[in-house]
Amino acid sequence: MTKLLISLAALLALAAPAIAQEEAAAPSPGEIVAQAPAEEWITIPSEDLLVMTLAPAADGSARKVVIQLMPAPFSQGWVANIRTLARAEWYDGVTVNRVQDNYVVQWGDPNYANPEAQGVAKPLPEGLREMSEIDYISDEIGQVLAMEDVEIDEDPYADSTFFHQGWAVGGDTNGAWPVHCYGMVGVGRGMSPDTGSGAELYTVIGHAPRHLDRNIALVGRIVEGMEHLSSLPRGSGALGFYTAEEAGKRTPILSVRVASDLPESEQPAFEYLSTEGDTFASYADARANRRDPFFIVPAGGADICNIPVPVRRVAD
Amino acid sequence: MTKLLISLAALLALAAPAIAQEEAAAPSPGEIVAQAPAEEWITIPSEDLLVMTLAPAADGSARKVVIQLMPAPFSQGWVANIRTLARAEWYDGVTVNRVQDNYVVQWGDPNYANPEAQGVAKPLPEGLREMSEIDYISDEIGQVLAMEDVEIDEDPYADSTFFHQGWAVGGDTNGAWPVHCYGMVGVGRGMSPDTGSGAELYTVIGHAPRHLDRNIALVGRIVEGMEHLSSLPRGSGALGFYTAEEAGKRTPILSVRVASDLPESEQPAFEYLSTEGDTFASYADARANRRDPFFIVPAGGADICNIPVPVRRVAD
Repeated sequence: MTKLLISLAALLALAAPAIAQEEAAAPSPGEIVAQAPAEEWITIPSEDLLVMTLAPAADGSARKVVIQLMPAPFSQGWVANIRTLARAEWYDGVTVNRVQDNYVVQWGDPNYANPEAQGVAKPLPEGLREMSEIDYISDEIGQVLAMEDVEIDEDPYADSTFFHQGWAVGGDTNGAWPVHCYGMVGVGRGMSPDTGSGAELYTVIGHAPRHLDRNIALVGRIVEGMEHLSSLPRGSGALGFYTAEEAGKRTPILSVRVASDLPESEQPAFEYLSTEGDTFASYADARANRRDPFFIVPAGGADICNIPVPVRRVAD
Repeated sequence: MTKLLISLAALLALAAPAIAQEEAAAPSPGEIVAQAPAEEWITIPSEDLLVMTLAPAADGSARKVVIQLMPAPFSQGWVANIRTLARAEWYDGVTVNRVQDNYVVQWGDPNYANPEAQGVAKPLPEGLREMSEIDYISDEIGQVLAMEDVEIDEDPYADSTFFHQGWAVGGDTNGAWPVHCYGMVGVGRGMSPDTGSGAELYTVIGHAPRHLDRNIALVGRIVEGMEHLSSLPRGSGALGFYTAEEAGKRTPILSVRVASDLPESEQPAFEYLSTEGDTFASYADARANRRDPFFIVPAGGADICNIPVPVRRVAD
């Protein structure tokens, strides 16, 4: 790892005339992504998108959150359960019950796995699979494949971390697993070896809690509307659950729908930047070595959660 | 790094009778901290505490934020400027102008360094020092000392990361610098080589933006009231600034005071867990190797921002 105290860009700024400085200005990560050719953007299948509609905000504005479910080979049992729960309209009327600062926002039945629960748990629909902890990792992706992808070095939580088909994953000789970055969506559960059904979901709203990797199933990520969850008032109960006195702060979830089940005109469309293309490699390098004009010292590295995979909405 | 697929605790849970399981249950990081002897808690000097009072919330409740300023040898020029600005009551009446999801909340003069600025910048008081980028690192702490502290391995941003007198720092052969973890407070600035005066401040509300290390001065951390900043509505302008149309969302800052300047009865008191003591070493190890009953697989490591230094309010 090269640690330059004064970057090349800064040296040029001292030595070169103004016009040369402009020519030398390195593009920012965002500018690199904006130049990606169309063929490096990959459409997200509409059956992998969930549209979660929250009750309107206090000022009356609509709050929609779009979640991208994870494709194979990761967590497919839970992902199938979540589609089953959405199609049974089971999530309609549940609430956001837990907002723990620098950790997670969690939604589901307020009477399940909640230290503040006061009622009877909502019955689950038929047909949910029971998953086990061996499903937390996939042996379909191993070290060999990892070497072909954009790999990120020096991770304290995994032998290697890399990007695979649009997702940040960790791996070792046993297989690979998705990692807990900001905005990732996972399956709440009770004490191990319970692995959860998919009825309780959470998203990460703080520093990546990577110690949860391989301990909780990750099933997707928020691709739009994250701010509707991350800015919710924090709960003052244990683990950030809203107390009984704060029950009025529980945000109601009006509905959760698989996008492909919606009328075509209401289906959102998203695409992600291929993590196997040249642009993503340049983008990841620029995230690790910021040389755009604001920066003085490029870091010389980045952790995998500081290289978010670019996702964008496709205009109607 | 040992990667056990099934932890010792999980094996015991399978093999041992219930009573033995309870005896074998490993303490959580929080339980370890709760057992720390009194002498491992170190009082934070009241001149290192800033009390920032925001306008009351929509429901009328008070919003106070307490910031711990960083002690020597880090960023002392900016820290001195911030005390000067607070004592000149310069911050009184400024606002929170920028809330960028998964990044920062920034407060200061809405007409300074703000793409949405529409007025004239507020004049600064006399006596502020001008700092330079060489002040971003301290050569008083180097690799030798690092070896004596609790060191965290495998960091992509620094040759080594470690804890020093209550702070997470990175280092290389040139010196050491504080690192951008959740809740850290830094000095907003314009394009390099500007280093900012301390009039514009921000705190991290997302995944640690470690690429800012050595590029922006860190001056402290939020020790109470973080939720009043992290849950603010996100701005929809460039970089998360509130647009002119959203000016009503700018939270007013009523006052910022150095705690030692307050009447004694109003001075908050805080202490942090010594990062040089046995308890912190056990705590850091437990954060990296979770074996308390919820967990199935201990990570075998942790990044420095996933080991927050415990800080607590001292009861009156």
